[in-house]
Amino acid sequence: MATLQAAIDYVRDNRDEALKRYKQLLAIPSISALPEHAEDVGQAAKWLADELTRISMTQAEVIPTPGHPMVYAQWLEAPGRTTVLVYGHYDVQPVDPLDEWDSAPFEPTVLGDNLFARGAADMKGSLWAFLVAVEGLMRQEKLPINVKFLLEGEEEVGSPNMADFISQHRRRLEADVVLNLDGGMHSPGLPSITYALRGLAYFELEVRGPSHDLHSGVFGGSVHNPAQVLCELIAGMHDAKGRITLPGFYDTVRPLEDEERQELARIPISDEELQSMTGAPGLWGEQGYTAVERVGARPSLDVNGLIGGFTGEGAKTVLPAKALAKVSMRLVPDQDPTAVRGQLCEYLRRNAPETITWEVRELAQGPGAVMDRNSAYMRAACDALEHTFGAQPIFKREGGSVPVVGIMQQQLGLDSIMLGFCLPDSGLHGPNEKQHLPTLFKGIEAYIRFMVMLGKN
Amino acid sequence: MATLQAAIDYVRDNRDEALKRYKQLLAIPSISALPEHAEDVGQAAKWLADELTRISMTQAEVIPTPGHPMVYAQWLEAPGRTTVLVYGHYDVQPVDPLDEWDSAPFEPTVLGDNLFARGAADMKGSLWAFLVAVEGLMRQEKLPINVKFLLEGEEEVGSPNMADFISQHRRRLEADVVLNLDGGMHSPGLPSITYALRGLAYFELEVRGPSHDLHSGVFGGSVHNPAQVLCELIAGMHDAKGRITLPGFYDTVRPLEDEERQELARIPISDEELQSMTGAPGLWGEQGYTAVERVGARPSLDVNGLIGGFTGEGAKTVLPAKALAKVSMRLVPDQDPTAVRGQLCEYLRRNAPETITWEVRELAQGPGAVMDRNSAYMRAACDALEHTFGAQPIFKREGGSVPVVGIMQQQLGLDSIMLGFCLPDSGLHGPNEKQHLPTLFKGIEAYIRFMVMLGKN
Repeated sequence: MATLQAAIDYVRDNRDEALKRYKQLLAIPSISALPEHAEDVGQAAKWLADELTRISMTQAEVIPTPGHPMVYAQWLEAPGRTTVLVYGHYDVQPVDPLDEWDSAPFEPTVLGDNLFARGAADMKGSLWAFLVAVEGLMRQEKLPINVKFLLEGEEEVGSPNMADFISQHRRRLEADVVLNLDGGMHSPGLPSITYALRGLAYFELEVRGPSHDLHSGVFGGSVHNPAQVLCELIAGMHDAKGRITLPGFYDTVRPLEDEERQELARIPISDEELQSMTGAPGLWGEQGYTAVERVGARPSLDVNGLIGGFTGEGAKTVLPAKALAKVSMRLVPDQDPTAVRGQLCEYLRRNAPETITWEVRELAQGPGAVMDRNSAYMRAACDALEHTFGAQPIFKREGGSVPVVGIMQQQLGLDSIMLGFCLPDSGLHGPNEKQHLPTLFKGIEAYIRFMVMLGKN
Repeated sequence: MATLQAAIDYVRDNRDEALKRYKQLLAIPSISALPEHAEDVGQAAKWLADELTRISMTQAEVIPTPGHPMVYAQWLEAPGRTTVLVYGHYDVQPVDPLDEWDSAPFEPTVLGDNLFARGAADMKGSLWAFLVAVEGLMRQEKLPINVKFLLEGEEEVGSPNMADFISQHRRRLEADVVLNLDGGMHSPGLPSITYALRGLAYFELEVRGPSHDLHSGVFGGSVHNPAQVLCELIAGMHDAKGRITLPGFYDTVRPLEDEERQELARIPISDEELQSMTGAPGLWGEQGYTAVERVGARPSLDVNGLIGGFTGEGAKTVLPAKALAKVSMRLVPDQDPTAVRGQLCEYLRRNAPETITWEVRELAQGPGAVMDRNSAYMRAACDALEHTFGAQPIFKREGGSVPVVGIMQQQLGLDSIMLGFCLPDSGLHGPNEKQHLPTLFKGIEAYIRFMVMLGKN
């Protein structure tokens, strides 16, 4: 316990210095989705490898992949103790619409208790916090456990190279459990552990009509407008009860047991609170399920982007040759993303009119996952959170996708402990993303406790 | 007749010199819809005022409006003779998608019989041809008629300042008939006269859901996606028979009489030809009408543009805060564009869910028009076309909108003779717009004949 408190004290005493490094990392615009930021993504990888070396990790290296690189590092000086494979990602989402940001997304800005920047919450915050925790323990004596870091730069584009990388480095990545830093807290006062994640199947659907843009006066009324057809196809993907109409979509969905529904019902978040977080005029969704169930334990389908025809200022009277939608499904166990692609195509074969042609391109995919809520690792995480925040954590199913969790379950046979400290109102993926700093500071201490507790196993 | 032939000979002998001026005019990117091209629009106005002065018009001037300027000029040295108000526009459509152009849109390129450039057909071509015709006659003795030019720079954005301008300059614009140069030919061998135009009601429809972009994993399934709702609303605007569902939309539509349907049926254009012009996999439209009727004599509704969410490369998992569509209706007599706005809003009030909010913004509007097919002016136009092209012109209803025709009918009490020489496959408003030059050269001679015939009245 002396080590524990000394590490916590060290971290508290050196907070300002550490915060500077958090801001350095945030200032790197490591947007993985945009080719023009490839160099920045590489720079963030380099920054992390240097930082890992600084805090005494060995073999820190930036490993190329066909996409953005992985960062690997390890510390294996605790023989016989638990080995934790620590996963995080250092890439961030694009920042558009830029004009809706109140501060520049890559100029970290503290306002009250929050730090505003792209990536502050998702997830450079928790990544930084864990590095600070490791340094805090290192400064005392040694780490009480073995750690291996695997940090990727492509999480925000669906981790396209993760599966191959893991299968190529299976030996090197051997561990007892995964600590996935890409998690969140329910609220500042209430810690939570995510034990299930939704999967993702993300597509681009293009509808083509005329071979070229037409004058909507000369031809309007005689040709099926591809933007209209795209709208019709998208409109048909939900029925009046909010259910997804792709043929066979629900066939493999694992039903929610009563016991789990009761547990999820204990999550203290009302529909009003959820609605207030979104700022929407009302909630909506699949009939027969609560909002918490809809986002965590039921699949969903969203239009992520829409584009076609003339979108500039003013009135261009064009009948567009094509229109495009980005459409993605959040999946639950045991839905298979590849099967979902087939279901989407079957839906289009059945419903698309012959007056247009269509094409589906897959942009990202990953399976969902459910973890054992009763393992020793999960208990260590619970205890660390309870001691740090003074409240018993709730178990949550997360609506977001972390494809790597499913991949690591499949390929390494490892459950992931999702332990991270962003809050639901962080503005993830949108403008004005923020990290609640008091929660993150406590998070550092929770990480220290988690490692110390695992060291006793 | 000596004058007629001499003018035609003069024009033929000086074709190369004249073509240079056509290309000069085409090289000016006078895109009225884009604020960054405002100066170019002004430059095109100036170019025309200079050109009008060069061909002996008097009082040529560029007259400011709240938007882009008007160009006015006159020649009134034929007392007692017919006075023709010549209407044209010198603005052009935007050029996107730019990457689908085979040559730069503002570097006029001759390939075979065609000249490729934005505005080549719509409508700097016919405007230039008429100026060449006037010069041809001027070089002989005098013009046989009086002319007044009114050239606008905002036709492609719906002529927002035309009605006010005409009401402020009613006296100056007094004439016997309008010659509207913004017309087309059926095909190179078959001249046609447009005697009816559709009107336009052009709107922007914005659907708003969450107050900010959300993470589609965290919130997907609990909030109504505004892009999805926009699609649902657009999908509902047509029924299964291709009819528009806005409440009351067809109430004032003037029915097609059998006599007119028979005349329209004589237009020698098959569905196969129309389809081949569009390059679409099939035709489509309101049941119970031919394609020619659908585009000329029946109203239509098109999505002109669609945008929302993430439209860059890759997979951004965003649940967008809003989505926007540009939607326009082509109207037939006696539909009132303002009433149509009310019908659209009523449709939205009835069909939009309470889980989103919506807003309609009007971008452009103008009434449709039908002209007397038996006036002396119409006969002169028919004769000029028949003599020039060796074929009797067909009477057409045009699907496009020329708001100024309706405005001039309402405010000046004048019918417009639509006489222009772009062809249906010119790629109007799309990439690779082109003008068939042999048709345009004949058009110059038809304009000369038209003026000479009117001079005999």
